Amino acid sequence: MKYNFKNDYTTGCHPNILEALVSSNLVAQEGYGEDQYCNEAIDLIKAKIDHGDSVVHLVSGGTQANLLVIAALLRPYESVIAAETAHIQVHETGAIEATGHRIQTVKSADGKLSPDGIQKQLDLFEEVHTTIPRMVYISNSTEIGTIYSCDELKALSLFCRVNDLILFMDGARLASALTSAANDVTLKDLAIYTDVFYIGGTKAGALIGEAIVINNKTLQKNFIYNMKQRGALLAKGRLLGIQFLELFKDDLFFELGNHANRMAQKISSGISDLGLSFLTPTYTNQLFPILSNVVIAKLMEDYVFFTWIKIDEEVSAVRLVTSWSTEEQAVDEFIADLKIAVGG
Amino acid sequence: MKYNFKNDYTTGCHPNILEALVSSNLVAQEGYGEDQYCNEAIDLIKAKIDHGDSVVHLVSGGTQANLLVIAALLRPYESVIAAETAHIQVHETGAIEATGHRIQTVKSADGKLSPDGIQKQLDLFEEVHTTIPRMVYISNSTEIGTIYSCDELKALSLFCRVNDLILFMDGARLASALTSAANDVTLKDLAIYTDVFYIGGTKAGALIGEAIVINNKTLQKNFIYNMKQRGALLAKGRLLGIQFLELFKDDLFFELGNHANRMAQKISSGISDLGLSFLTPTYTNQLFPILSNVVIAKLMEDYVFFTWIKIDEEVSAVRLVTSWSTEEQAVDEFIADLKIAVGG
Amino acid sequence: MKYNFKNDYTTGCHPNILEALVSSNLVAQEGYGEDQYCNEAIDLIKAKIDHGDSVVHLVSGGTQANLLVIAALLRPYESVIAAETAHIQVHETGAIEATGHRIQTVKSADGKLSPDGIQKQLDLFEEVHTTIPRMVYISNSTEIGTIYSCDELKALSLFCRVNDLILFMDGARLASALTSAANDVTLKDLAIYTDVFYIGGTKAGALIGEAIVINNKTLQKNFIYNMKQRGALLAKGRLLGIQFLELFKDDLFFELGNHANRMAQKISSGISDLGLSFLTPTYTNQLFPILSNVVIAKLMEDYVFFTWIKIDEEVSAVRLVTSWSTEEQAVDEFIADLKIAVGG
Amino acid sequence: MKYNFKNDYTTGCHPNILEALVSSNLVAQEGYGEDQYCNEAIDLIKAKIDHGDSVVHLVSGGTQANLLVIAALLRPYESVIAAETAHIQVHETGAIEATGHRIQTVKSADGKLSPDGIQKQLDLFEEVHTTIPRMVYISNSTEIGTIYSCDELKALSLFCRVNDLILFMDGARLASALTSAANDVTLKDLAIYTDVFYIGGTKAGALIGEAIVINNKTLQKNFIYNMKQRGALLAKGRLLGIQFLELFKDDLFFELGNHANRMAQKISSGISDLGLSFLTPTYTNQLFPILSNVVIAKLMEDYVFFTWIKIDEEVSAVRLVTSWSTEEQAVDEFIADLKIAVGG
Repeated sequence: MKYNFKNDYTTGCHPNILEALVSSNLVAQEGYGEDQYCNEAIDLIKAKIDHGDSVVHLVSGGTQANLLVIAALLRPYESVIAAETAHIQVHETGAIEATGHRIQTVKSADGKLSPDGIQKQLDLFEEVHTTIPRMVYISNSTEIGTIYSCDELKALSLFCRVNDLILFMDGARLASALTSAANDVTLKDLAIYTDVFYIGGTKAGALIGEAIVINNKTLQKNFIYNMKQRGALLAKGRLLGIQFLELFKDDLFFELGNHANRMAQKISSGISDLGLSFLTPTYTNQLFPILSNVVIAKLMEDYVFFTWIKIDEEVSAVRLVTSWSTEEQAVDEFIADLKIAVGG
Repeated sequence: MKYNFKNDYTTGCHPNILEALVSSNLVAQEGYGEDQYCNEAIDLIKAKIDHGDSVVHLVSGGTQANLLVIAALLRPYESVIAAETAHIQVHETGAIEATGHRIQTVKSADGKLSPDGIQKQLDLFEEVHTTIPRMVYISNSTEIGTIYSCDELKALSLFCRVNDLILFMDGARLASALTSAANDVTLKDLAIYTDVFYIGGTKAGALIGEAIVINNKTLQKNFIYNMKQRGALLAKGRLLGIQFLELFKDDLFFELGNHANRMAQKISSGISDLGLSFLTPTYTNQLFPILSNVVIAKLMEDYVFFTWIKIDEEVSAVRLVTSWSTEEQAVDEFIADLKIAVGG
Repeated sequence: MKYNFKNDYTTGCHPNILEALVSSNLVAQEGYGEDQYCNEAIDLIKAKIDHGDSVVHLVSGGTQANLLVIAALLRPYESVIAAETAHIQVHETGAIEATGHRIQTVKSADGKLSPDGIQKQLDLFEEVHTTIPRMVYISNSTEIGTIYSCDELKALSLFCRVNDLILFMDGARLASALTSAANDVTLKDLAIYTDVFYIGGTKAGALIGEAIVINNKTLQKNFIYNMKQRGALLAKGRLLGIQFLELFKDDLFFELGNHANRMAQKISSGISDLGLSFLTPTYTNQLFPILSNVVIAKLMEDYVFFTWIKIDEEVSAVRLVTSWSTEEQAVDEFIADLKIAVGG
Repeated sequence: MKYNFKNDYTTGCHPNILEALVSSNLVAQEGYGEDQYCNEAIDLIKAKIDHGDSVVHLVSGGTQANLLVIAALLRPYESVIAAETAHIQVHETGAIEATGHRIQTVKSADGKLSPDGIQKQLDLFEEVHTTIPRMVYISNSTEIGTIYSCDELKALSLFCRVNDLILFMDGARLASALTSAANDVTLKDLAIYTDVFYIGGTKAGALIGEAIVINNKTLQKNFIYNMKQRGALLAKGRLLGIQFLELFKDDLFFELGNHANRMAQKISSGISDLGLSFLTPTYTNQLFPILSNVVIAKLMEDYVFFTWIKIDEEVSAVRLVTSWSTEEQAVDEFIADLKIAVGG
């Protein structure tokens, strides 16, 4: 049997969610997100972020959340600034442009944005002849596994407020970010420092589901019409409500993020112990070790993962991803097999 | 406890689906619909429709299926013809127009389209100055519970082919249509006579899910890019695959449709036996009995359902909907309570 | 030689405009509407409407003006209410839907909207599941030659303000409307009672050009970005400025509208004198006399015009349109020829 | 009086065009591009390019032409590749994204694209998760005054055909490109080697107008519906027809391009004679000399032009643009004044 480190959506969902689906199954509910589970889940999330003014909407997936937020909050001639590595730029099939909006990309070695990088895009503005930059998109953790510190987040928030920019955080991998050993950001901080963010369920032990949290009161109006219009409002919204209720009851969300990170750290230590290096340090559930092509080929016989980028003719960085369901045994076997492959 | 006849998505899903979710939960799979369950479900559906050339895509819901199909198959200046009562016209928050396309509506007493009605819209065409009608949207069963006969379907199909129109059937309630006592259409007929149709899971015992079947080979190319671009491609596509696999394994889909229809017929007979009449005959899982406002008020104390339209100051038609999970006991109690309310 | 009564854009422009193009030709100017002619024309229009808060933008044509206004002022899930005969509904190739917005149409015998008709569309609203009606589109004169009285305009304005609807008047044929003998509306009234309207140049003696006037201050922001983004901002904006400057200097605009109306009235009287009737009374520069097919065929040998609708097997209504350049001699000959055709 | 070297649309149009507008003014014509002048102009253009299969459409401006072509020819999930300096990327207010399409940009020192640069964008393609690159946009002359050689054009054409890419040339400054001393490309070559290109009138002595030429027969269908739908079909299309008829009768178009280039070369020589250098060589009607800030400030007292980019604290490159209407006297005075400014 091959162990799978390809991504964090290879398995189903945490058993608590399955149990809740079973126990609630025959209870008749209102449709379109008006059910009791959605209501309870939203109340619970609002309590966790401690921001009574926020509104929360539950949707199916990350690309859907991104395009809904961007299309709902921007006027047609407004653009969004993002890192060159941003998911909306590299892996969403032009979803943002399909809603009519330009993405202005910033080079970034670590997948993060800073005021300096954003300022360079603002400097390109020419009245009438360019779009008006109006939103900043960041992801936390980023597409290459890095996270924002609270100071970085505050600096971005201040810069955005000064420059009339909406700060939007893609939290598809927020569970992993907030439970990183290096993290000092809380859910409450996100409610204070971003205008809108979302809490990823799909990559944190749910079957589907992202919870969009709009903190800025001026941006909340009629969001659900955009959801319905773009096919994002589920008839059986209960499916989303039940999952987020389980994830935030007893802080399962954080427990699962923590597990994924712990598994990643264990692999990371095992790799370091072998004297091998990484493309970037391991903060969250994504690791980018640098391995020889021979070792990669050997490992791929028993494990599923991506080659990320070629370093030179003989060596590449690979991507390994752990998740809520990664078993410690798989991690141990991987390290042992790597040891053999490298030693051999 | 109130019994709920408001719609056919008040409960969760058939227990078989829950069991399959549980048993498959920890099996690692490819993402984005490349998993074994999607593959098996699609193969099974293709076998059922007996049309090797069709391609099948699984998506989350009806509005999403409608906008994906229409946006993918029409050029910007092409329009879709639909009945005035069509779901895309009355209950999708302008989803079709939001993709850039006009809906041309046809008056229809029974919710169905005929060549005559379509021809009237074709007659409005003026070169350059109007959109080019290019698609016909029908739903089966319709929004008011009627169904197409095979002869009607054949006539529409022929008319569409002659007039270079794509025939698209919204099958959100296809389970109920195909198991109606009045029905003579098969899944195989749909593959032959429509260019594209979809098989509704959400209203037939699934949590979410519609299976889009594109029969016309010239319309199949790159459909999945449209799905991804509009946020309709689930990372854990397995959630859709598992459900359709269960629905079509052992023909559960038809069994559930049949159950809903049987419950509707039982209510219908009970109402007729009381000498009451209907807005339209009961063919599927939607009933439209005409009741006095006093009776309606009395019933609403114990049952949840919609008032459909006011007939006069004292009498209205209501809508009752049964589903895969409607219990016979609820039906029996409803008839008994109606008898008391009417008799009283 | 055939005289042409087909429409009001068969010839070029008023000679004053040509002279101004010639005399200004080699004066170097800023591009994109920043030239002195645009500035002067806009100042002149604002003086004529006596509404200092209005902003004015010059664009090329009517469909362009319509789609720019509607797309700029509506959010994606908002719709516009219009008469079934509205230009945006019948002759703009789905231009409004192409910007993502639904048109909700109201039946109207005279091409006009009233609060009652609009209310019927408002009644269709269902929270989340339908678009939100947010704009009312009227045209003055209408597509069938009728005009709004000041009382009708006030009633619409009040109704729109009460119902949070933007009132938008398409003034492609405003010259003819405001100079109709039956008219009691002024340019100043339009600035008070509409949120936005435009002054049609193309059908009033210009080569191209419509002046969009946005009276409601909350709707003015960044309109020019929408113009640029949709290809409506001319590099040599002077072409538009020069024309509107000529049209409003010495009230040429009204003089030309009046001429067209006078020619229409003369034809109308001639037709009435022959005992013939009309589909609708003649208020502006469009006439809809009812003629026998034999007479129509005879006239079409020497004149160009449209058959509008078939009344019965033997009789049809035709449309005759006069313009700023219609010569009285053509009118006289037409009446004489009609007399012969009818008498023969 | 200040001479204006800011751009090539500061003045009106060539006198021949004004004369033709005057002489044709009262001739009644069909609307919407069906007039005799459009027909004749299109026939003339087709004769000049010697490509009977091409279709020609006349529109108002460059941004409009670009968005029409790109939106008409791409499917929603397809993208266009362009140089980082491309007009569609830097000066069209997100017009392309507003039609739903992504621009993939290529770094380019000289504003031109080569197969190598395009290939790098093709390499980013990932099935389903990225847009499909389907068009290559080039401009000739480019935004920084360079031109394509016939060999370069052939190489691009071959590369595009091999890779199933549509080759689209923006010819807003085609007059200047084709009459450059360095040019070896003909109009006939463009018909052979591009799928679609347009001939810029606005920057070549017309008031407005670009002639879109679609050479590839598979891309021609229904283009005019896109024009109408996006507000680009003028009621008085004659305005465009008359202008292109004059521009191509007696090859005025080339004469005017040649004049602009000659004026540019004269300035260029004058600058070189003073020992000054350029950012890029002068091939067409745009020059980019490098001047000290002191000299720039001095010249700006009497001449209008742009500072293009800052080279260091004391020196910048400026942009000077000549046009069909640039007088030799202005050129001579400029050189004389520059001599004084530099010498002083």
